[in-house]
Amino acid sequence: MTPTSIPTAGAAVGGRVLDHPARDEIRIEGVLHALADPMRLRVVRELAAAESELTCSHIDLPVSKSTSTHHFRVLRESGIVRQFYRGTAKMNGLRRDDLEALFPGLLDSVLDAANRQAHRGDGTR
Amino acid sequence: MTPTSIPTAGAAVGGRVLDHPARDEIRIEGVLHALADPMRLRVVRELAAAESELTCSHIDLPVSKSTSTHHFRVLRESGIVRQFYRGTAKMNGLRRDDLEALFPGLLDSVLDAANRQAHRGDGTR
Repeated sequence: MTPTSIPTAGAAVGGRVLDHPARDEIRIEGVLHALADPMRLRVVRELAAAESELTCSHIDLPVSKSTSTHHFRVLRESGIVRQFYRGTAKMNGLRRDDLEALFPGLLDSVLDAANRQAHRGDGTR
Repeated sequence: MTPTSIPTAGAAVGGRVLDHPARDEIRIEGVLHALADPMRLRVVRELAAAESELTCSHIDLPVSKSTSTHHFRVLRESGIVRQFYRGTAKMNGLRRDDLEALFPGLLDSVLDAANRQAHRGDGTR
């Protein structure tokens, strides 16, 4: 009968648990806010292209380590990304199933939009 | 040969011109940022439901006049809404054609997501 902390919406590996919103806590405003930043959108595009979990260090952003950590946290707290430890590496995976169940087609339309913009002939990304 | 100011991307009625981004200046990050705010998302949902231009005062937001004006400006400057004067009334219309050409399916997937969230059984909007 020992009280136990159950990480209902977390992902625990190796004893370290990171907070995640449960599916029904994910809000469209938070998702759009998270995706509205160029660096975070880049992370999401890389995760989508990889179709698997990636370490934070695998996704090389042209920002400081602390800024990068901030961006990953925003993605996790908005419900877009699930973060967990594999040994000492912090892994990141898209919460495709949760997002698709809540907001069908949204993630793919944003990824498509970002892809179209990246390939516009205006020279900017 | 008088120099003339041509409002290439503006909408001029009655001499007052409001700045709008041209289609190819509309950026996905700006669109997502604009849609990430609950008040602005509400405006976009009302404009989509109306399927016509609405005055700012028709869309009654529970915020101050200056905050409301700010939200409409963000929507205009991001390329989501076209604003123009009809007499003394400032009208607002969704730039559906521009958004659909740039980011097919994006606006509808966001509207659908917002609608689903509003109808979730969690009592919040």
